[in-house]
Amino acid sequence: MQTENLLEIIKKRRSIREFKKKKVAGPIIEKALEAARWAPSGLNNQPWKFKVLEGEERESLAQYTKYNKVIECADKLILVFLDKESSYNHKKDLMAVGAAIQNILLYLHSQGIGTCWLGEILNKAKEVEAKLKTGPQLELAAVIALGIPQKQPSPKKRKSLTEIIL
Amino acid sequence: MQTENLLEIIKKRRSIREFKKKKVAGPIIEKALEAARWAPSGLNNQPWKFKVLEGEERESLAQYTKYNKVIECADKLILVFLDKESSYNHKKDLMAVGAAIQNILLYLHSQGIGTCWLGEILNKAKEVEAKLKTGPQLELAAVIALGIPQKQPSPKKRKSLTEIIL
Repeated sequence: MQTENLLEIIKKRRSIREFKKKKVAGPIIEKALEAARWAPSGLNNQPWKFKVLEGEERESLAQYTKYNKVIECADKLILVFLDKESSYNHKKDLMAVGAAIQNILLYLHSQGIGTCWLGEILNKAKEVEAKLKTGPQLELAAVIALGIPQKQPSPKKRKSLTEIIL
Repeated sequence: MQTENLLEIIKKRRSIREFKKKKVAGPIIEKALEAARWAPSGLNNQPWKFKVLEGEERESLAQYTKYNKVIECADKLILVFLDKESSYNHKKDLMAVGAAIQNILLYLHSQGIGTCWLGEILNKAKEVEAKLKTGPQLELAAVIALGIPQKQPSPKKRKSLTEIIL
């Protein structure tokens, strides 16, 4: 259950790369995708699709990234695709997809579920798309590995506010 | 004060296009940028910069978008830039910027502040960058208009979960 306020949730979320051998319940994943569904997008075009993988299907993606261990120990993966059929501006649509991903990460963190936003696997996006036969209208944008965190890593550094405000 | 849980915050956030003639306190804006600061990014590169405009500076941007009325009645604008000096992959960096924007929108909504993510103004990004003399390393990614909502608009439609899950 959520006991923190939003800013605490945002600040305490971390990339989790080691997970316990425990299952994350299906309804939590569904709520995470419900969170993604309510992200904003330009012209409300909602240029996203999601695919949840577990078990052998999940493991079969480990070969496409040097972060294979994260995929191997995760309970599930959420694949995030940019839906080119709904797309109207690639740049704005990528930002909308980023907003949807952040909704997923924040919601799962608020429920005690760890996530890791994997980007390096995009180097093999074409191979992943071919393996999953997702069709030409979907462009792999991210893979989110998730599970029960093995431990809470210490905070990563961030630039100071004065560095990022003009 | 925040009384809703995260999923309610995510689902109830709307684009707000009409604002009351009231000020949003500076510390709330600072916390919104603090929320942005903790967004995830590839290799933790944090490829973002922000600029807050109000008063005449804010009004001077209205000429660059057909949504000039949103800018005219907003209390403040948060300009969001992709920082090309910190960038390593334009696609991933745009998604990271989208995650940072979503943190801002969610945090402000949780505090009763309305926001509108303006994308159409990107058609005049070069003109805005020139006017603000932001330099060649910054690429305008979004303008967020914000203020006290005049009213709460009714929900926009979203695709159903079955439409967006493969």
